Amino acid sequence: MPEERIAPVAVTRVAEGSVTRDEDVLAVEEPLEIRVAWEQTEKNISVTMRTPGDDYDLAAGFLFTEGLIRSAEDIESIRHWGSPNIVRIGLRPGVRIDTGKLDRHFYTTSSCGVCGKTSIDAIRVVSGAPPPPAAPIAAEVIHRLPKLLEQNQSAFRATGGLHGAAVFTATGDLLRIREDIGRHNAVDKVIGSLFRDGTTPLTGSVLMVSSRASFELVQKAIVAGIAVLASVGAPSTLAVDLAREFGVTLLGFVRDERFNIYSGQIA
Amino acid sequence: MPEERIAPVAVTRVAEGSVTRDEDVLAVEEPLEIRVAWEQTEKNISVTMRTPGDDYDLAAGFLFTEGLIRSAEDIESIRHWGSPNIVRIGLRPGVRIDTGKLDRHFYTTSSCGVCGKTSIDAIRVVSGAPPPPAAPIAAEVIHRLPKLLEQNQSAFRATGGLHGAAVFTATGDLLRIREDIGRHNAVDKVIGSLFRDGTTPLTGSVLMVSSRASFELVQKAIVAGIAVLASVGAPSTLAVDLAREFGVTLLGFVRDERFNIYSGQIA
Repeated sequence: MPEERIAPVAVTRVAEGSVTRDEDVLAVEEPLEIRVAWEQTEKNISVTMRTPGDDYDLAAGFLFTEGLIRSAEDIESIRHWGSPNIVRIGLRPGVRIDTGKLDRHFYTTSSCGVCGKTSIDAIRVVSGAPPPPAAPIAAEVIHRLPKLLEQNQSAFRATGGLHGAAVFTATGDLLRIREDIGRHNAVDKVIGSLFRDGTTPLTGSVLMVSSRASFELVQKAIVAGIAVLASVGAPSTLAVDLAREFGVTLLGFVRDERFNIYSGQIA
Repeated sequence: MPEERIAPVAVTRVAEGSVTRDEDVLAVEEPLEIRVAWEQTEKNISVTMRTPGDDYDLAAGFLFTEGLIRSAEDIESIRHWGSPNIVRIGLRPGVRIDTGKLDRHFYTTSSCGVCGKTSIDAIRVVSGAPPPPAAPIAAEVIHRLPKLLEQNQSAFRATGGLHGAAVFTATGDLLRIREDIGRHNAVDKVIGSLFRDGTTPLTGSVLMVSSRASFELVQKAIVAGIAVLASVGAPSTLAVDLAREFGVTLLGFVRDERFNIYSGQIA
């Protein structure tokens, strides 16, 4: 485990009347600036608070799941740029990004104002085509995922402070796992890692997250072609609406040999 | 409890071989656009995914904790604007906001690039003065807070899907509680509600959150004058650094009659 992800911090533990000075291990949080360069343009497109490590996966995954680039071949270079907290992605000649997509105004249309419905419509634009229908997955495979996620979350075990996101095959084999202090970042890292390998769209695979399932996590799954999203926590109403609209199988409260199916079906 | 915060959703429950069709109750997630108007200017300054309800608290709290306005008197009007998902805040004549502060570029300085240190320096600018030193709080008061938070989180009990944020007095009396699907939004709502009452700075009070404690939650506490932040989950390294720099008492893993002190001290 790269040590940059966790750091020792002096702590005073208070429990049952006892007060002990000790050392604790916490998840590191630092800002990451993502810069993109193409033709004569160079733009800072995001600053996110993230846990260091897998920065290239995070930067590439963010561009991909936000619909700004479509293929790993769009990227010519990706490197830290004068600081461990700045990643610069150079695009291949001829590739350019539409930074207007980053503007959350795109959720608004003049016809009905900002609402869940327009947010869902916007995903249609960002994602291109919806993911293929989910291959049904067996309940016994789903029951295994939370433990596999937790066992492979090395930094979480050390700190209790990191979200995990993992991509599995439909038979429950772990393809890739990433951790971050931010839910969205963990998902961008794991998808970005597979994207950089050229293995997207991730048709037939399952995304399992340690957190709740919000609208934006379903969005990222759809853009990556992932048709099954399983979360340890609860989904939101808009996550369910988006999943149903795009044929994504959405599972919530996946833990302790139980789960709820909010959209789609299992084998 | 306003029904807009939760909604029924059809669900299939899978457990121990049984498959049951049922109805579940989920937290509602919808976008909220925050618009600010002053003089001849009207600007959309944020779109956030939030749980409906307490929208005015959220909008006012966001402007306040981001350092864009300093007093409830800066606000002349606050209302929904042609949609339940748009809130427009009109500023009092003579008041204007520096939208440059919203640009996360402000974390970057030319001298050292983007890093935790510059993020902390930026908070000095945003917050004006640091909060007064925390009044020491007794361990037995802190032990009571998680249960009080949970008991008062009506929508969480229904859905399991909402973050809670509550402000208590130093003796453990609940001043205000708010819930949201987003951690930051729950904190903006509870601080915004007290801000609108004219009771900020919240000197001598305690902010308790159901989530982890990140850099931005410590930032919001500091801007509101709150010198004790207690979280059910883990803090990040940068949250601890910021708390120590500003004299904020930061408590983590506050649950089950235990807690850790990462910064400051208790009585």
